Amino acid sequence: MNQLTGACIIGQSGGPTAVINASAQGVIQTALQQGCITRVLGAAHGIKGVLDDKLYDMGQEDPAELELLKYTPSSALGSCRYKLADPDADDTDYKRILEIFQKYNVRYFFYNGGNDSMDTCNKISKYMQKSGYECRIMGVPKTIDNDLNGTDHCPGFASAAKYIATSCAEVWQDAHVYDTGMVTVVEIMGRHAGWLAGSAALASLTGCGPDLVYLPEVDFDMDRFIADVKAVYEKTGKCMVAVSEGIHYADGRFVSEAETSATDGFGHAQLGGLAVMLAEVVKKNTGAKVRGIELSLLQRCASHAASKTDVEEAWQAGSAAVEAAVSGVTDKMVAFQCTREGGYQCKTSLEPLDIVANFEKKVPREWINAAGNGVEQPFLDYVLPLIQGEPESPKENSLPRFAHLKKVLTTSM
Amino acid sequence: MNQLTGACIIGQSGGPTAVINASAQGVIQTALQQGCITRVLGAAHGIKGVLDDKLYDMGQEDPAELELLKYTPSSALGSCRYKLADPDADDTDYKRILEIFQKYNVRYFFYNGGNDSMDTCNKISKYMQKSGYECRIMGVPKTIDNDLNGTDHCPGFASAAKYIATSCAEVWQDAHVYDTGMVTVVEIMGRHAGWLAGSAALASLTGCGPDLVYLPEVDFDMDRFIADVKAVYEKTGKCMVAVSEGIHYADGRFVSEAETSATDGFGHAQLGGLAVMLAEVVKKNTGAKVRGIELSLLQRCASHAASKTDVEEAWQAGSAAVEAAVSGVTDKMVAFQCTREGGYQCKTSLEPLDIVANFEKKVPREWINAAGNGVEQPFLDYVLPLIQGEPESPKENSLPRFAHLKKVLTTSM
Repeated sequence: MNQLTGACIIGQSGGPTAVINASAQGVIQTALQQGCITRVLGAAHGIKGVLDDKLYDMGQEDPAELELLKYTPSSALGSCRYKLADPDADDTDYKRILEIFQKYNVRYFFYNGGNDSMDTCNKISKYMQKSGYECRIMGVPKTIDNDLNGTDHCPGFASAAKYIATSCAEVWQDAHVYDTGMVTVVEIMGRHAGWLAGSAALASLTGCGPDLVYLPEVDFDMDRFIADVKAVYEKTGKCMVAVSEGIHYADGRFVSEAETSATDGFGHAQLGGLAVMLAEVVKKNTGAKVRGIELSLLQRCASHAASKTDVEEAWQAGSAAVEAAVSGVTDKMVAFQCTREGGYQCKTSLEPLDIVANFEKKVPREWINAAGNGVEQPFLDYVLPLIQGEPESPKENSLPRFAHLKKVLTTSM
Repeated sequence: MNQLTGACIIGQSGGPTAVINASAQGVIQTALQQGCITRVLGAAHGIKGVLDDKLYDMGQEDPAELELLKYTPSSALGSCRYKLADPDADDTDYKRILEIFQKYNVRYFFYNGGNDSMDTCNKISKYMQKSGYECRIMGVPKTIDNDLNGTDHCPGFASAAKYIATSCAEVWQDAHVYDTGMVTVVEIMGRHAGWLAGSAALASLTGCGPDLVYLPEVDFDMDRFIADVKAVYEKTGKCMVAVSEGIHYADGRFVSEAETSATDGFGHAQLGGLAVMLAEVVKKNTGAKVRGIELSLLQRCASHAASKTDVEEAWQAGSAAVEAAVSGVTDKMVAFQCTREGGYQCKTSLEPLDIVANFEKKVPREWINAAGNGVEQPFLDYVLPLIQGEPESPKENSLPRFAHLKKVLTTSM
């Protein structure tokens, strides 16, 4: 083993999740225990914190508060959506990153995020290799969208899926209370992959699930959609629809953008949202009372309804990244390899950053029904083990007790 | 004590809540134990079920499923929004109700709902008194709006308040993740009273609450709103606003309707919603990135985030109604009388249906701050005890296990 002594940086990037802080906690707690890691630094707002020399000394945090990170949604260190340039075209940022790494003798870099973040991580890794600066660089996966390549699933996805399924089951109850007709359209995140929208179908396991589910993996057809809804509505007097924000026509145009600009041409998309727009289309075509519900940010920050499995796996992903790096590994992302037959089992593996970055994993077509308006059993079998267990989230006054970090900026080595 | 033997009917009416079924359960379980109550009938869709002679025999339900009603949101028997006519103008419905009461020898009638439902209950009570048909008629309170007169608070309110506070705390975390500007507007139910919108301020107890809260008790002024948001945004780069759907201008026009019709004149109100509209106003005036979030139905059916206190009190309200009726009481609504000093205590009382019906209890002006954009400590002291405790909601596969009722229609005595 090649012992490498120095500081480490943990950064969080991209859209937050209910459990991204559990991964940060896994990195921080494990790193603080390593003799070769002299200091654990948290980057303020991901790679921007490195570029701006804004790094928190995580060793100065109260361990009890760090422990609460497991139950605190969103990115506690701050996040960013910052795209690094191609280093061959412009290496300014890379030089700056190297400068900061040298300034603090950073020998371990952990980057916690989704597709774009793994791209950032990969670029930094390759640049450091090229420059000859020895630094072990590891990706820690995160995304509610569940679209990262090379891993069975992504931390953050399951908690969002569980919130979506639970909320859909509850809304179903609410939407079936009157003996008058009612069509409910629930809009769910996931611009290019339908993992989250499909998870709405888990609600059916409670006896109260959506009748129709539309994923971006299948081209959307408005006439077919109207016919689908009509068929259910005419039979039962109700219809509940779950729809991915990313549904698009065969020509690639997002339904949200295409329809709303066609309607009034002044940015209605931003105003109304897809659920409300589709609900209006249904109203026009059926006369039914309609309700459009957008789960919005709620679905990605609902730590109060998180999956314990997800929380624990998220922590494990962070911890495994540190352990691998300390043992000599670099240029990898921690991934999950799982088996479901004979009981769910999940192990971490290490995948090359190259194969992870910039590839979006979609729902297999055969997991979606032939009509393109629902998911098949293999989809449910895939998701169900991931949402199991209730985390013991600490409360004060029956409200969530989130971590309060001191965030002490470090100024020197 | 005047022993009265016969059947009872329980009906649910108005918008559902997370705990209205706990009240129904309180009625059903307590009624099933009374020797003088020969049969417990559930009205399908409230008073409409009585008029339509659609009554379920609750004695045929599996007791274990009845037990699950405590954790099942929305109205399990079905609800309605049916307004009875003034009996002096048209007594058709009343005659029909009397006919059904006679058909099944109904001597106890429990009606579970909010303002309109207490009006229904009151009218039926007075009609039965006038007609000389002996029937004990009791109101069981329910409304997330918390606007019923004569009671400290209403079952259903606290669970919605808790969901709103929890969600606002989580959204606050999410909205503070980037180092770029962001204004978030959260729209909360409550057409005429601001109890729910004000409860968003409970999130501040977690350190993550809205900066500004607007209740319908104070006339809304758009210029002042913009100035309020600007002041917070310019100071901190962020601003989170909680707003009641019922905010209105001094002339009484709802902001949602007034503004949206001014914008495009074709029913935008239905399309966009208030949160999104206000977010757009802020965007135009500050250039900030904005996000409008409507909590929609989610806030009234979120049994997964209910208050244990609320669940238990809701059950108690139903049970107390039966006990009072059996002991000879009629023409009353069960209410709560609470003390908070020296620890929260809640006792049931019985209030005349007349004083409850058709009066909306608002948030006292002195519980709202002088600027009209936040609530004062007495408001928080009032709500906080009500949201305490986590119910032990049963789960299957880590998803809610709701009650499955057989709903066996009864056809004869």
